[in-house]
Amino acid sequence: MIYVDHAATTPLRAEAKEAMLSAMEYFGNPSSMHKAGQEARGLLGSLRETLAGLLNCSPREVIFTSGGTESDNMALRAAAIEGKKLGKTHMVISAIEHHAVLHTAYALEQEGFQVTYVKPGRDGIVSSESIEQALREDTILVSLMYANNETGMIQPVEEVARLCQKKKILFHVDAVQALGHVPMALDVLGADYVAFSAHKFGGPRGIGGLYVKKTAPLYSFMQGGSQERGKRAGTENLPAIAGMVKALEVSLRNLEEDRKRIAYLRDQFVDTLSEIEGVTLNGKMEGRLPGNANFCFHGASAESLLMMLSEKEICVSTGAACAAGALEPSHVLLAMGLTKEEAGSSLRFSFGSEMTDAELDTLVESVLQVYAAQTGKR
Amino acid sequence: MIYVDHAATTPLRAEAKEAMLSAMEYFGNPSSMHKAGQEARGLLGSLRETLAGLLNCSPREVIFTSGGTESDNMALRAAAIEGKKLGKTHMVISAIEHHAVLHTAYALEQEGFQVTYVKPGRDGIVSSESIEQALREDTILVSLMYANNETGMIQPVEEVARLCQKKKILFHVDAVQALGHVPMALDVLGADYVAFSAHKFGGPRGIGGLYVKKTAPLYSFMQGGSQERGKRAGTENLPAIAGMVKALEVSLRNLEEDRKRIAYLRDQFVDTLSEIEGVTLNGKMEGRLPGNANFCFHGASAESLLMMLSEKEICVSTGAACAAGALEPSHVLLAMGLTKEEAGSSLRFSFGSEMTDAELDTLVESVLQVYAAQTGKR
Repeated sequence: MIYVDHAATTPLRAEAKEAMLSAMEYFGNPSSMHKAGQEARGLLGSLRETLAGLLNCSPREVIFTSGGTESDNMALRAAAIEGKKLGKTHMVISAIEHHAVLHTAYALEQEGFQVTYVKPGRDGIVSSESIEQALREDTILVSLMYANNETGMIQPVEEVARLCQKKKILFHVDAVQALGHVPMALDVLGADYVAFSAHKFGGPRGIGGLYVKKTAPLYSFMQGGSQERGKRAGTENLPAIAGMVKALEVSLRNLEEDRKRIAYLRDQFVDTLSEIEGVTLNGKMEGRLPGNANFCFHGASAESLLMMLSEKEICVSTGAACAAGALEPSHVLLAMGLTKEEAGSSLRFSFGSEMTDAELDTLVESVLQVYAAQTGKR
Repeated sequence: MIYVDHAATTPLRAEAKEAMLSAMEYFGNPSSMHKAGQEARGLLGSLRETLAGLLNCSPREVIFTSGGTESDNMALRAAAIEGKKLGKTHMVISAIEHHAVLHTAYALEQEGFQVTYVKPGRDGIVSSESIEQALREDTILVSLMYANNETGMIQPVEEVARLCQKKKILFHVDAVQALGHVPMALDVLGADYVAFSAHKFGGPRGIGGLYVKKTAPLYSFMQGGSQERGKRAGTENLPAIAGMVKALEVSLRNLEEDRKRIAYLRDQFVDTLSEIEGVTLNGKMEGRLPGNANFCFHGASAESLLMMLSEKEICVSTGAACAAGALEPSHVLLAMGLTKEEAGSSLRFSFGSEMTDAELDTLVESVLQVYAAQTGKR
């Protein structure tokens, strides 16, 4: 199987699996006062410190969650509660956010919030100017993802962070696709909330986190026990946290080497595909996640191409896995100005460093074959 | 280490760990359309069917969540949304619910709901009569747990279910402490929502579920992707789901044998302790989870006893692990009519079947020792 869908999920790193198995030995509930609990709590604390070191933040600024979706929900809900208190009920949300952000924003609209959705340019980038234009006196939050999950386009999050700081507006960054893939220091970034998910960088499923800047308001999203300093109820998932921290550690240690390899594979792929008549790159090469390529195969059905490739044991996607089955054209590509037809003809390829050169050749050849089979073009 | 705190969390069963490791091989995102996704989705579907078989319900009635806390939040929030639509903004919540239910109820009060908290008798049981008396024309939901996490007292959930059915009121059962420990068939139970958590029956952390009866209203608690038929966003945690289903399978297969062993250990313990002057059982023996004993050690500080036992490598608790550190007297014991002092002198012992007879002897001797050390009584 040739897996070119790392943006959907990544295989668990061997080191992360080992860390999970080791952490399973700490069977106590970290909230228990007895020795088994203390030992588990000790490990939890040291994992939080390691993670904070990797993120360049304070351990107190890390909340463990069940994943990126919960982290996004938690950030927007916290800002919403704060906004209601302050009488600020307007939010600025980029139109290319993940559904975890967008659908929460839709829900908040039902609850009386006003939301301005800011579109990207044709290049897939939401400019800080367009964000600035959308700001109002009663804006409580801006949400702009670090890198888009479909196009891999990196957004001007540092610029927007400075803008929000100046205007005293909360800023949420969904960094699910970026953390572990590009260098990131949260103290430099300057956002109030940053969401991440372990299984996007070789960690386990069902675990993620939300960075919450010391000064940012935070309210419980899930009510219950007093875990995570009362901000996130539920028994701490120690083995998964151990797996996540180890996966991030390894990802960052190998970052430069992996980036080079991944970018090499992706660039070779893009160079070849770009020569084919009827095939155009969505977004641009500059300022893109190293492993992402997103192409429009004009005149072909992306779904059919995907299924034909799948029969050849090649895994690619039409967009966010989370929206798969919906069969609706990508909201990201539509926001960039593609037509419904173009969006319905677009495939996402997201590379991992483990791909061999031989697999790359097979991938290229197979993509050309299935496109030719549908359109006669190659 | 002698672990007598299975109500806080249970060690992961070997079979569950194996199932997790096997499921990790299915590395695709179950929502992806390609082959790796299809394979993961196939496993997810068969796990859901197995689980539904174990619970006696339909696979469509099972929603996977991050654990008991999320399941409780989701059920109460769903009922609240439905209640607002229907103009029914009253809830009846037992006073001995887990904080995941109680704290959600407090939040709902802030949002305009009226909540009647129904106390148990001195025996720790909330009678169906007292629930019935609390019902109003505008009651949307009753919430009563299957068995209490501190006292192990089993509640009259089937009676209350019939009552709620008759009055067309939604009924939520937090079965976190009961599932896998006592026989349970959800079709017989007749509740609208049933919450459960894997790590309470030998499964992994960070995974649980909510049974939602076909006819019961359900709304997303987390917004995002269209997983779980659009009702629970977030990438499905396949390895953890596999671990949970296997743990439940093994728990139910061994249920009678384990119950006998656990009840034997607990009964021996209770018989000995009951003879000690100043030591009284909280709740009663009849209608109690087989592994639970909760004693008031009059004149002693439960926290000190706990720490002294912990130094002897014996793990017991003062109440819910989730509230540990709070150092507040148990809301459950107070609701039963114990004084603050009595509640602050009470310890929970929750047995597992792996305890040896020799460990039981050590436990009994150690408890007598530490109580004598504090009070001179034995």
